[in-house]
Amino acid sequence: MRIEIICTGDEILSGKTINTNYSHIARRLHEVGLGVEWGTTVGDDRRNLLDAFARAAARAQAVIVNGGLGPTVDDLSQEIAARAAGVELVLNADWFARMEDYYRRRGRVMPANNRKQAMLPAGAELLDNPIGTACGFAMRIGGARFFFTPGVPRELRRMLDEQILPRLLAAGGGQHAIRLKRFHTFGLGESRVDEMLSGVERLAPEGLVKIGFQAHYPQLETKLAARGADAEALAVALVPVEAEVRRRLGNFIVAEDDETMESVILDRLRREGGSLALAETFTGGAIAARIAPLEAARGIFRRALAALEVAELRVACNLAPAKDATTDAGTAQAIAGALRETTGASHALAALVLPDGDKDGVEFGGDIFIGIASSAGTIGRSARMLGGRDWLRLGAGEMALDSLRRHLLGKPVDERIDFERR
Amino acid sequence: MRIEIICTGDEILSGKTINTNYSHIARRLHEVGLGVEWGTTVGDDRRNLLDAFARAAARAQAVIVNGGLGPTVDDLSQEIAARAAGVELVLNADWFARMEDYYRRRGRVMPANNRKQAMLPAGAELLDNPIGTACGFAMRIGGARFFFTPGVPRELRRMLDEQILPRLLAAGGGQHAIRLKRFHTFGLGESRVDEMLSGVERLAPEGLVKIGFQAHYPQLETKLAARGADAEALAVALVPVEAEVRRRLGNFIVAEDDETMESVILDRLRREGGSLALAETFTGGAIAARIAPLEAARGIFRRALAALEVAELRVACNLAPAKDATTDAGTAQAIAGALRETTGASHALAALVLPDGDKDGVEFGGDIFIGIASSAGTIGRSARMLGGRDWLRLGAGEMALDSLRRHLLGKPVDERIDFERR
Repeated sequence: MRIEIICTGDEILSGKTINTNYSHIARRLHEVGLGVEWGTTVGDDRRNLLDAFARAAARAQAVIVNGGLGPTVDDLSQEIAARAAGVELVLNADWFARMEDYYRRRGRVMPANNRKQAMLPAGAELLDNPIGTACGFAMRIGGARFFFTPGVPRELRRMLDEQILPRLLAAGGGQHAIRLKRFHTFGLGESRVDEMLSGVERLAPEGLVKIGFQAHYPQLETKLAARGADAEALAVALVPVEAEVRRRLGNFIVAEDDETMESVILDRLRREGGSLALAETFTGGAIAARIAPLEAARGIFRRALAALEVAELRVACNLAPAKDATTDAGTAQAIAGALRETTGASHALAALVLPDGDKDGVEFGGDIFIGIASSAGTIGRSARMLGGRDWLRLGAGEMALDSLRRHLLGKPVDERIDFERR
Repeated sequence: MRIEIICTGDEILSGKTINTNYSHIARRLHEVGLGVEWGTTVGDDRRNLLDAFARAAARAQAVIVNGGLGPTVDDLSQEIAARAAGVELVLNADWFARMEDYYRRRGRVMPANNRKQAMLPAGAELLDNPIGTACGFAMRIGGARFFFTPGVPRELRRMLDEQILPRLLAAGGGQHAIRLKRFHTFGLGESRVDEMLSGVERLAPEGLVKIGFQAHYPQLETKLAARGADAEALAVALVPVEAEVRRRLGNFIVAEDDETMESVILDRLRREGGSLALAETFTGGAIAARIAPLEAARGIFRRALAALEVAELRVACNLAPAKDATTDAGTAQAIAGALRETTGASHALAALVLPDGDKDGVEFGGDIFIGIASSAGTIGRSARMLGGRDWLRLGAGEMALDSLRRHLLGKPVDERIDFERR
């Protein structure tokens, strides 16, 4: 199916707002096996909108239009859609009643100009928006089916998943059940995972499963996308593939689906009745800032210490000054141990990072020393990574949390990762 | 001038990469007074690229093409540009020599397929890329001047500023000097600043200065963009406008141009020979993570403490447990004072945030208590903000740093801001 995405609005066209709606729509389409062929961006301008709709109507089979459904005068999508299709705008009484109700439940009176949001091109099919006042709609213009969606990201996302993808998949031949399974790994590069998973899709019936990757360093997301006629059959067919991915990627799988590194760690600590203290150099509070704000951290996250110098951390943990200037995994273990004593937390994690000299360069990197203290004693992990300062900061923080995850789950903490050099 | 931006590449089309290059190009064009009329996204596909180039050649006067200049087989921009213009590809010997030199200086041999990057459409004007192997080029196709740029963001950004904007401005009538003055404020909403600055552009000759805003909560950026024939004359003409903006926005201006809140604070501390310790609840290390990683923080940032509970912070600062459970500005001052004593830092900043109940809701918010300790004693600031948890976290962290900035610069710390409710 030839699909075009048209994003409208001066804020997007002028670059004032980064167009994340576009990438979300395109990614979701790819995840269910539909490609995008063209992306078009136009402002709130009648002539250009009409021109964009006409071109898309001529070259695409399905068009997703984003934005321009609001109540203000520069929201033009309904008007131009009607003009492009040569039909009138008519009031959709159902949606108008829904909007009045929406305001009533919030104890407010609907402003008069919101009526515009219930004016749809004659013959258009309403696409429900359960969380906003801008309804979507679908209609034929020229040779294409057009789907009009709101610009508010969470409204768009829900309408896309609940209303539009099923319709597109149904139009594409009844294969409207979709299943997306995601694995989050740390420590393996994309090409390596690609190699390691070679052929796994063949454990499901021919053509059912597609594998895709999305790298957001330091993690990599591996996606198994399956589509077919029947959701239950899909789930069953995916079981052996999922199991094989788990077997091959093993301990490098940090989390699955909506889980995260942080949620896995906090979940485990909660089950153990545990708590956590952190100490970091170089990462400068970035590890704490990943854990502390989470709802799941309440009652578990105790305290975090950040400093630029290891000596400062020693003082903060009531440790005696070091006998020599060497920092190693033993130092990290000593700091973790002292931190655990000082704070009374069940677990303490220390991440000490010593970046190379002064400048970012081709071979710039740093040494990473991680210490974990628990009732079972202390363990250490050391590694060296190459890359710029931000790269090192992200990688080291991730390695520290991953070491804690592995320790909590009884997995080996010192398994070599792709990002380290010795 | 009618301008189109064409972004190429499967990674962008499929949404795998968020298209920040597009918004950067569009924003820079707007800052120098040039608008964008169309945005087009196509993949690495010969037919669609050719079609996109042909359409842009017919409807635009200037076209900026991003991506597709790399050495691999799916980099098609030169090939399709030549085809669209009906010319051959020819080796640009100068650029080929530059590439060889680029590799030689890095002690590597240039791979054979990089030669492709020096093959340009006959008659194209080379656009220098001093930091990469993909040269840009400019040429006429149909009725438009096309500018081809690399997909690597920093290479694109430099080429845009140094090579393309001056050419576009020159083509637009010799007004090729541009000046962009930026003010960063905290505490005032966009519409309020818009009102406060009403008419300031009239302090410069008619039409010379345009005011624009870019909100990135919690800060707002106010931009004065001026263009004309002569850079020196522009700078002189802007002086009274800049002075008036400074007068009207006053203490709310946090930084100008490339300065940041962080750099202003660290610069001031460095001049005083000072140092800094931080304590935070709810923001969970986020304040520290803004300061600690900066080069300018070396020797100044001493230590940061993050916890979820005020009681935990008290313990960590060797303060006696509170007599009652009330947290107020006095608590923040006491913690800042104790932290300063414990760490020996010249300045200590404590930011205590008490979020409302359990759920994000329409009226969700939190109380913010800030304490600052220095050799001059301690001061406090309290405020209440509404908004979701992330909103509150960002706003409270900004308010804490802004209070420190104000204190360091001898400005009032308790000036009411737009985001607080009492």
